[in-house]
Amino acid sequence: MATIVVDVMPKAELLDPQGKAVSGALSRLGVDQFTSVRIGKRFELTVDGPVGEDTLAKAREIADEILSNAVIEDVIGIEVVE
Amino acid sequence: MATIVVDVMPKAELLDPQGKAVSGALSRLGVDQFTSVRIGKRFELTVDGPVGEDTLAKAREIADEILSNAVIEDVIGIEVVE
Repeated sequence: MATIVVDVMPKAELLDPQGKAVSGALSRLGVDQFTSVRIGKRFELTVDGPVGEDTLAKAREIADEILSNAVIEDVIGIEVVE
Repeated sequence: MATIVVDVMPKAELLDPQGKAVSGALSRLGVDQFTSVRIGKRFELTVDGPVGEDTLAKAREIADEILSNAVIEDVIGIEVVE
């Protein structure tokens, strides 16, 4: 059994209000080490058996078409773990 | 400038309705390569300058106390990139 991890982040040119909110909360709590916070999604897709090239291609396809919204998000990584 | 990536996933024993919904959508679309889907969060914390041990310790602290909800989520990874 393997897991394919897909990382999706809001596009760099977008504001990411969720990240801004966390960043503001950190400032108010006196945490000043981090200049910005951005929040994206991490998908774990479980695959029975080994991950072949076709399964990885299908993962790339659904990452672009279903798991992310290309207008506001970028798929920044797809990797097989375990 | 460096980035600390914090990965947070719903605890394994929880249902993760968001992941279940995506999994169901994939089945309906005829995608049967993936037996389950779980959806978590990926935080990117930007740091000015190099990441020292104290900055990393602070990142671990906010990952546990602010970025995740220990009742329903696990921090599964903290790593420095770039």
